[in-house]
Amino acid sequence: MTYCIAIKLDAGLVFLSDSRTNAGLDQINSFRKMMIYEKTGDRFMALLSAGNLSISQSVRELLQTMTVRDDATGEVLTIWNAKSMFDAARVLGAAVRHVYDRDGVALKRAGVDFNVSMLFGGQIQGEGMRLFQVYSAGNFIEATAETPYFQIGEAKYGKPVLDRVLTADLPLEEATKCALVSMDSTLKSNLSVGLPLDLAVYEVDRFSCNKLVCIDEHNPYFQMLRSNWGERLRAAFDSIEDPQWFGGNSTVPLVMDKPSPIKKITTPEEKLV
Amino acid sequence: MTYCIAIKLDAGLVFLSDSRTNAGLDQINSFRKMMIYEKTGDRFMALLSAGNLSISQSVRELLQTMTVRDDATGEVLTIWNAKSMFDAARVLGAAVRHVYDRDGVALKRAGVDFNVSMLFGGQIQGEGMRLFQVYSAGNFIEATAETPYFQIGEAKYGKPVLDRVLTADLPLEEATKCALVSMDSTLKSNLSVGLPLDLAVYEVDRFSCNKLVCIDEHNPYFQMLRSNWGERLRAAFDSIEDPQWFGGNSTVPLVMDKPSPIKKITTPEEKLV
Repeated sequence: MTYCIAIKLDAGLVFLSDSRTNAGLDQINSFRKMMIYEKTGDRFMALLSAGNLSISQSVRELLQTMTVRDDATGEVLTIWNAKSMFDAARVLGAAVRHVYDRDGVALKRAGVDFNVSMLFGGQIQGEGMRLFQVYSAGNFIEATAETPYFQIGEAKYGKPVLDRVLTADLPLEEATKCALVSMDSTLKSNLSVGLPLDLAVYEVDRFSCNKLVCIDEHNPYFQMLRSNWGERLRAAFDSIEDPQWFGGNSTVPLVMDKPSPIKKITTPEEKLV
Repeated sequence: MTYCIAIKLDAGLVFLSDSRTNAGLDQINSFRKMMIYEKTGDRFMALLSAGNLSISQSVRELLQTMTVRDDATGEVLTIWNAKSMFDAARVLGAAVRHVYDRDGVALKRAGVDFNVSMLFGGQIQGEGMRLFQVYSAGNFIEATAETPYFQIGEAKYGKPVLDRVLTADLPLEEATKCALVSMDSTLKSNLSVGLPLDLAVYEVDRFSCNKLVCIDEHNPYFQMLRSNWGERLRAAFDSIEDPQWFGGNSTVPLVMDKPSPIKKITTPEEKLV
């Protein structure tokens, strides 16, 4: 499996991916799931992928030269000349569909789902930053101020902290920290997600990314974050009063006056309802 | 969906379940997912269920009178006379198989998976407490000191805090708090899990449960826990240093000397590998 997060803030974009792939439990490998496409001063785009590796690698290969004809203008669009990230996402969707046309039937015959999902974000000169999630059918949705992040792969373990912390007005550093905490929770609870991580942080209107780093178990910041987060989460947990059943000295008893609707069944003859 | 947790500690057992069921998004209802079976002084058993509601309700109905013949002794076992929780779990497994024999083919024809999973734990006079997870095939696994908890349903959101906090030697109150925090994270991130909650806490060698409570949005302890946990998690997050890219004043820079292996693609002609 995989875990990738992409966040769109007012200040920029954060992309974080793990690098573990597995075909069953006995075939575990390390593959990069992040691609950066860049023409300095003109466009920056990052692509994160999850799902079947043969599909996502094919999509990435094709994306380089994929074209889509614009119905209105007749123009031939690529990710390199598209005037908007929306058009670039259309080109990516077309690449996904192309792989489906080529491999879909044979995969189905082999009992393999056509399973791929991608996060694609960036900025093209002339418009603001945009972030898309692209599905197996080549269709896509866009992040908005209300929902400033997308996740693909093993998304559930690391979702609670994102839901509690992320807003579009966070500074880039804080959102990066939040993505790393979310990844840490996922690494801790799911073996199919593994180090090293790839992190790219893009500052708005820069049209180039100068913050691109590979984080392995020796990275001092990530080491510090993992150990401190574990300790402080535990301290936060310990600081909350334990439940007291029958009031006790607590001002917040667990028991309410209302009796539980759960009926204890005490004989084999008893009716459940 | 559903979220249920059961924890086996040295001091006792904790069972927590939500009460939301849904068939699609527009048919949401409230059903109890916890059953308590009890002969005071002789046995206490709790059953939590997730999956297809028609299956789990049938299993619960059947379990009351289900029998299994013991191959060695010829004895007829029920949950009411079984001398061990292992045998009681066999009776539960047999009830699951009975429902499969009755409904499995018709469900398959309708395109519905035979999907049910259950947590079943308790104590029978003459042995220690035991906790089992029972699968759709009626087979089961048992919790041990190394893995003192099981989850069913929407398990992933609430798993990180369990992995960080739970050990078999925790006091009952602390494990109860941990289960409630895990449930809170799940409630916050997944709409298909909902209040009220049912909570049962069993003290070892009591053979009866006197701590059985229904927790709704008015429960003062759960209200306090939800608001404090949110605040303190945020404070823990804020207390961790933000990442600094190029060292800065930080003793823990995010950047290592090692360059990232991610190659920026800058032209359509560029080879990916």
